[in-house]
Amino acid sequence: MTRAAGIDVGGTKFLGVVLDDDGTVLVEQRRATPRGGDAVVEALAEFALELAPYDTLGVGVPGLVTRDGVLRAAPNLVGASEVHVGSRLTTLLGHPVSVDNDATCAIVAEWQHGAARGFDDVLLVTLGTGIGGGIVMGGHLQRGSNGFAGEIGHMVVQPDGPFCVCGRRGCWERFASGRGLQMLAGGRPGEEVVAAARAGDPESLVIVDTFAHWVALGLANLTNVLDPACIVLGGGLATAPDVFLPPISREFRALLYSPDNRPSPVLSFAELGERAGAIGAALLPTNHNL
Amino acid sequence: MTRAAGIDVGGTKFLGVVLDDDGTVLVEQRRATPRGGDAVVEALAEFALELAPYDTLGVGVPGLVTRDGVLRAAPNLVGASEVHVGSRLTTLLGHPVSVDNDATCAIVAEWQHGAARGFDDVLLVTLGTGIGGGIVMGGHLQRGSNGFAGEIGHMVVQPDGPFCVCGRRGCWERFASGRGLQMLAGGRPGEEVVAAARAGDPESLVIVDTFAHWVALGLANLTNVLDPACIVLGGGLATAPDVFLPPISREFRALLYSPDNRPSPVLSFAELGERAGAIGAALLPTNHNL
Repeated sequence: MTRAAGIDVGGTKFLGVVLDDDGTVLVEQRRATPRGGDAVVEALAEFALELAPYDTLGVGVPGLVTRDGVLRAAPNLVGASEVHVGSRLTTLLGHPVSVDNDATCAIVAEWQHGAARGFDDVLLVTLGTGIGGGIVMGGHLQRGSNGFAGEIGHMVVQPDGPFCVCGRRGCWERFASGRGLQMLAGGRPGEEVVAAARAGDPESLVIVDTFAHWVALGLANLTNVLDPACIVLGGGLATAPDVFLPPISREFRALLYSPDNRPSPVLSFAELGERAGAIGAALLPTNHNL
Repeated sequence: MTRAAGIDVGGTKFLGVVLDDDGTVLVEQRRATPRGGDAVVEALAEFALELAPYDTLGVGVPGLVTRDGVLRAAPNLVGASEVHVGSRLTTLLGHPVSVDNDATCAIVAEWQHGAARGFDDVLLVTLGTGIGGGIVMGGHLQRGSNGFAGEIGHMVVQPDGPFCVCGRRGCWERFASGRGLQMLAGGRPGEEVVAAARAGDPESLVIVDTFAHWVALGLANLTNVLDPACIVLGGGLATAPDVFLPPISREFRALLYSPDNRPSPVLSFAELGERAGAIGAALLPTNHNL
């Protein structure tokens, strides 16, 4: 049996897994994400040792990652830019480390073992601190010319809207991410809004509907561009499908271009939950045909 | 020598070509687009006979086209919806006819013989009456799960903006198409604005700059999603690169997400000009590996 380790670097935490040959999770670990690129790399090396033994290691990081493992920009990872994650981890650990975008990892996991099994055209959207995206088209994982495809959170949907962490205005993730939900709720934490909506609080239900509208607007835009057969929602917010799936589905249908003339894409929540990124990070080094 | 015929159905005119084996244009013809789906199909059959003799015939139509040649919806083609273009033309003409989206045809032409030669990740944007899009990713033409990928004109970029022909509000093509230019110019025809801007008229130059900003905003959004190495602008407006390319390039660079951390995609105008759609329509039936 080979053991494939994967680490998903989130804005707030690392999540690590070790998989067996069938993709079963043998080990699962968490730790807080430190601030700064150097600290992240060192914490990753320490964390990898906690996951050992393993045969291969993959890491998923949020932001623009080159094909050779350099994190060029990561607006949701404080103090991390131009970090040579791949080469530095390889030096620290003494073995090759595969590095990819976190949403690219998540779509690989959901496509191989989760909600998007069997589809050739898939869009994965991670709704977390920010928004990430992964794309499968024509039966192939698509990374784009630099490895930067799927930066869907920075699609501008309101040119005179509020400023985004990226320095521009009205990016989709300004409205449709965990931070967006908190903004729409006047600063109340997202978890609180979700709990109150679940309990039937009318004000929180209105906030959830507004949030769902913004999520659906971006999903409809991306459906126009990519024509996926299946859209998978992942990330932290996808842990509450009972609260979010009904309003997002309703708003999505209303916003879809020419809805009477096309089958609506299957809209589902990540089956692998918040572990999708780590599982995909583990799968990528052992699936070179992706 | 085989003769490949292609017809591009535009909102205002048909453009037909016949190519030899090298892609050289042997014949070129135009006629006005009639109103109504039945009239379009009959006019296409007549127009095909004018292009004869040919060995293969491909047709590019604007809007949602299924893989078996049914035009499901075409907001910029008056009175045409649910038109069985492929099967009806096959019956009328007595030979197989390949039908594809017009922007899909245009990207095939520019990718095989024009501005995008040699690139594996290409976005083609036709700026005409409306906006169409064609996508090449990972070295393959991408049509999406229904053949509807690339409907980029209906990406919403201003949710409270003016109504679009599709019934929704604030679609990109409401601002960045030929119609958009006319709207920004307070109803003056686009050609007039272009001529006046070329002559240095200050008011027209401001209109062109505003228009270029809207074009660039959509291109930046699509670059975030697709990460193309090359963007080709085609369609009627692309016949004035001297007027549009400098402001679009400038605004695009300013709007690009994380511009310091990525190579800017090559931004070019269609080399095959307004004939790209017809040339691609002619190429598709003879290139089954696309």
